[in-house]
Amino acid sequence: MIEVEVKARAPPGIEEKIINLGGAKIGEETHHDLYFNSPYHDFAKSDEALRIRIKEDGAYLTYKGPKLDPDTKSRREVRVKIADPLAMETILESLGFSLAAVVKKRRTKYSLEEAVLCVDDVEGLGAFLEVELSGGADWQVQKRTALDIMAGLGISESIRESYLELLAEGRDGR
Amino acid sequence: MIEVEVKARAPPGIEEKIINLGGAKIGEETHHDLYFNSPYHDFAKSDEALRIRIKEDGAYLTYKGPKLDPDTKSRREVRVKIADPLAMETILESLGFSLAAVVKKRRTKYSLEEAVLCVDDVEGLGAFLEVELSGGADWQVQKRTALDIMAGLGISESIRESYLELLAEGRDGR
Repeated sequence: MIEVEVKARAPPGIEEKIINLGGAKIGEETHHDLYFNSPYHDFAKSDEALRIRIKEDGAYLTYKGPKLDPDTKSRREVRVKIADPLAMETILESLGFSLAAVVKKRRTKYSLEEAVLCVDDVEGLGAFLEVELSGGADWQVQKRTALDIMAGLGISESIRESYLELLAEGRDGR
Repeated sequence: MIEVEVKARAPPGIEEKIINLGGAKIGEETHHDLYFNSPYHDFAKSDEALRIRIKEDGAYLTYKGPKLDPDTKSRREVRVKIADPLAMETILESLGFSLAAVVKKRRTKYSLEEAVLCVDDVEGLGAFLEVELSGGADWQVQKRTALDIMAGLGISESIRESYLELLAEGRDGR
């Protein structure tokens, strides 16, 4: 499935702006994300990602393919719920994958039109906004919607780097 | 966790012999097993295995390390329950792993002492017996127990090849 995603640094008062635009708060989550790399296939170069996410409702293994366009973070994403993240980590390490980084964040989710807006407070990086749409017939249309929502919130500058890359680059922006 | 496993072709009347030895039938399962290989790391050479097993109670991803001794199929095994085997297969293929073989079997399980005895009817291969013990403090002691049970059933010749290897070698024994 293609996941359309646009990300930006969250300006002050972003949650009020989302609500003023008609957004509704739909949840809060704590993410403990383990990112893996492979000695055979450098994901930083191939622009892929392999992640175990542990959150309140369980754990998930996610593969993300290379980004699809120069403007957004849209990419193919495949996810499976797993019963035991520690066993999954052991399997990945047995297969040669190595833990590359851990990212922790608090995510507050809003629903707006057909998008999900995530206000993320990322440990070591600060506050970000992600606008996500997925599962649509035409991801280019969804990309336009995501960029329009960003514009409606007064945000013109988006970021294509993952939290993983931002942490690696040491740009903590504080 | 080390899984001690001894395997042999099942002689006629094996299930009666197990019951006569004090075994109790504990279940029947249908296994649909997908075995994967990696272009980076040939599991046939490294004596490892990566498998998605789909059975009645759900699906599992299992990694098996190289065999630990020359007499049995004992090896380290790590298993995680997965909610969606098709998504797991897509993730493995995205990471470069390729589906190498599919093995289907009907397994009848017996409990005998601290062992589980599996009488397997494997599509294309015929009937086999596996004696399994796991989770003990000393796998060498468990290995002795497994070999003693085999001897008690009148079986002296064990097989170290996996069903995957037996199918690949085309020894269908019929």
